[in-house]
Amino acid sequence: MTDPRLAGLVQTLPDLRLLTDPADLEHYGRDWTRRWTPAPLAVALPSSVAQVQAIVRWARGAGVAIVPSGGRTGLSGGAVAANGELVVSLERMNRVLGFDPVDRTLTVQAGTPLEAVQNAARERGLAYPVDFAARGSCSIGGNIATNAGGIRVIRYGNTREWVAGLKLVDGRGELLDVGRGLVKNSSGYDLRHLTVASEGTLGIIVEATLRLADPPPPTSVMLLALPDFEALMQVFSTLRARLRLEAFEFLTDRALHHVVAHGAQPPFAETYPFYVVTEFAAGEAEEAAALEAFEHCVGEGWVVDGVISQSEAQAAQLWRLREGITESVARYVPYKNDVSVRISAMPAFLAETQALLAREYPHFDVVWFGHIGDGNLHINVLKPDDMAQDAFVADCERVTRLLAGALQRHGGSISAEHGIGLVKKPYLSSTRSAAEIEVMRGIRRVLDPDGLMNPGKLFDP
Amino acid sequence: MTDPRLAGLVQTLPDLRLLTDPADLEHYGRDWTRRWTPAPLAVALPSSVAQVQAIVRWARGAGVAIVPSGGRTGLSGGAVAANGELVVSLERMNRVLGFDPVDRTLTVQAGTPLEAVQNAARERGLAYPVDFAARGSCSIGGNIATNAGGIRVIRYGNTREWVAGLKLVDGRGELLDVGRGLVKNSSGYDLRHLTVASEGTLGIIVEATLRLADPPPPTSVMLLALPDFEALMQVFSTLRARLRLEAFEFLTDRALHHVVAHGAQPPFAETYPFYVVTEFAAGEAEEAAALEAFEHCVGEGWVVDGVISQSEAQAAQLWRLREGITESVARYVPYKNDVSVRISAMPAFLAETQALLAREYPHFDVVWFGHIGDGNLHINVLKPDDMAQDAFVADCERVTRLLAGALQRHGGSISAEHGIGLVKKPYLSSTRSAAEIEVMRGIRRVLDPDGLMNPGKLFDP
Repeated sequence: MTDPRLAGLVQTLPDLRLLTDPADLEHYGRDWTRRWTPAPLAVALPSSVAQVQAIVRWARGAGVAIVPSGGRTGLSGGAVAANGELVVSLERMNRVLGFDPVDRTLTVQAGTPLEAVQNAARERGLAYPVDFAARGSCSIGGNIATNAGGIRVIRYGNTREWVAGLKLVDGRGELLDVGRGLVKNSSGYDLRHLTVASEGTLGIIVEATLRLADPPPPTSVMLLALPDFEALMQVFSTLRARLRLEAFEFLTDRALHHVVAHGAQPPFAETYPFYVVTEFAAGEAEEAAALEAFEHCVGEGWVVDGVISQSEAQAAQLWRLREGITESVARYVPYKNDVSVRISAMPAFLAETQALLAREYPHFDVVWFGHIGDGNLHINVLKPDDMAQDAFVADCERVTRLLAGALQRHGGSISAEHGIGLVKKPYLSSTRSAAEIEVMRGIRRVLDPDGLMNPGKLFDP
Repeated sequence: MTDPRLAGLVQTLPDLRLLTDPADLEHYGRDWTRRWTPAPLAVALPSSVAQVQAIVRWARGAGVAIVPSGGRTGLSGGAVAANGELVVSLERMNRVLGFDPVDRTLTVQAGTPLEAVQNAARERGLAYPVDFAARGSCSIGGNIATNAGGIRVIRYGNTREWVAGLKLVDGRGELLDVGRGLVKNSSGYDLRHLTVASEGTLGIIVEATLRLADPPPPTSVMLLALPDFEALMQVFSTLRARLRLEAFEFLTDRALHHVVAHGAQPPFAETYPFYVVTEFAAGEAEEAAALEAFEHCVGEGWVVDGVISQSEAQAAQLWRLREGITESVARYVPYKNDVSVRISAMPAFLAETQALLAREYPHFDVVWFGHIGDGNLHINVLKPDDMAQDAFVADCERVTRLLAGALQRHGGSISAEHGIGLVKKPYLSSTRSAAEIEVMRGIRRVLDPDGLMNPGKLFDP
């Protein structure tokens, strides 16, 4: 207990688990970004909604800022605590609270990992269909705070679509119970949707009631090799029209190179410029339709090679080529862009971006992948081993400013699914107008009048 | 030009169409509620976004309140102008502005009628799936402002789900272009969802980009006769599990009585306590499944009679039994409740409500119908011809207070799809907590600092 301010918190909540050990401060003070030095005041691990409310009330009195904390797998610095904040980790609030088979909803505490939510749904004969590689580590509260997307958005939408209700302890310490699982409710402003993607700036999400879907159909996975970017949109249109797509992901040769170097099985004897991993409902008719679509694409010159999974093991192997990318490049401390445009704007935006990056990054290894069917592109720029982190980031920021300009021209977003956090704060105005940001600033003041909820994230006061 | 304040508006916008004739003031000053005497200052009919912005800026300077106005088919008084407001009707802004086949979106001006949106989508080989009886008169801007639901929610959700972007002239006169058709955009608070259901209190919706769906499958319509309320939920569960439901609506014998008295064909020789109109994907397998489900329900005693459409004409005839209710009881100036609970809470809530209304309204004709699969119940209390309107409304308000208490106990909403407006304002606190209402109040001040956008609606300042 180094800081005297904590004495008041301990007195208020003698049962609260509180960490101040330097290793804990470092562990809980950062997310998957590695740009800021963690320096929280302490880490609180509440076990109940009442404790969370008491923490916020104490923080208001003590003037201590709060960083809400889930699995800290974020890529935008939204969960970084580098300025003496109290980290409020939800990791002990990780229980399934209820299931309703008629409403088809699952109610969980916010610290529940995504994978635990998926498993709980599956055990009840249903599915929670939002999915991405960090499923084992990320928490549902963090998913909601960033409106997490992932690899199934093309079919099931983002996290937002599956939140039937949530409980938020706002910056005033008030518990807001919004949505409450109602299908229809036209009684004023939707504070549930307002909370989704608010990145901890309006309060701490403590509980969520999630809609569940029918279990997904049996699927097949297909890997396709493509000659160029133009082919990508053609293949997407063709497959979307003929198959029930559950996923449609692309990656470049550089992405495949790193995944294979990291231990994955190379799918083809040769290498190609682009690859698509797509998953679709399986069955005799569907396989025939897939084969026909494949042959059509080959005939048009849009696809130059391909493989279709013959077993679950092979499907998993093909998925690993896409899902293993982030891990395979992690050691290069990549600089990440996560941008989106309307699907119709994708071809023009891709052409412009490809030219921009080729011109500006001749010296860097640039790995592209993403959710092309959602208009969402991930760009990972790998840091050369012999380059200092600061100089590398500065160079990437220069290019991101150019990219933000392109996004503005194409009506796109600087953050498709990672959130703004600290990383993209300087570029928010490329996506949201000054009038919009002024409205967001005002709304934040309403729910967090003292400016203590995740300050410095998303936008400045 | 009776009011000197209008001179400034005329000077600012000499081309603006402005109505001050008493008949126009009455026509544009009220919606489908008939409880308030229209008394607007004037009616403005702008033809462009720039005109709307100029009107709002003038209104701020002149201190004149604004009532945004669509088709005025609302049932909660949200579009009533009874206190010298300027009605801003969007009816001249009713054009389709664009269609994108890749994004599958349709961009329209806010004054476009719902039916025109549906037709525009159909002409392009797609569908705008939100649908309800007022389709020919209501406007898409009004649909968005109330998050309109209707008869397809069970399959397609509410209006909210189909708004990919919208333009709002807020209470400051700023044009906010939010959403912009992006599938993925995690860049701060979602002002699009905030605007949906805001009932004109944050500004004037001037444009919308709507997502379109695949055209609906060919369907069959089935009318079922049921012995009691308990059977209703059983029939719903059975059919939901076995058929692809496009709609599942119920009505009581009193509702059918009025529709038939109004000219509809009686469906059966006998009358029964309850009826269900359901629509489902047609086809040989589906018809067999429907027949099997029907026989199962008959075997269990949940269904006592039924008919299935053999032609489009017959399907339309069966639908008329449900869709004609509102019109058939209009001459009785009904007092309307539009409430919802979670589907799982429906049986207990229905039982309590049935007992409540039987006890409190022994002397009134009460017509029930609604969207049971969404947890949404419409209750229309018909005014006896020999009773004064004021005394009738006062008696109904007394019962609504009791109903609001029941809703609060069952976690329901006082407004499922009609909005709060003026009619349900006294009961908002049965659905939203004091802390939530305080947040909404603060948000309203941010977008409408002078309190000029539809004042008195939804909640007081």
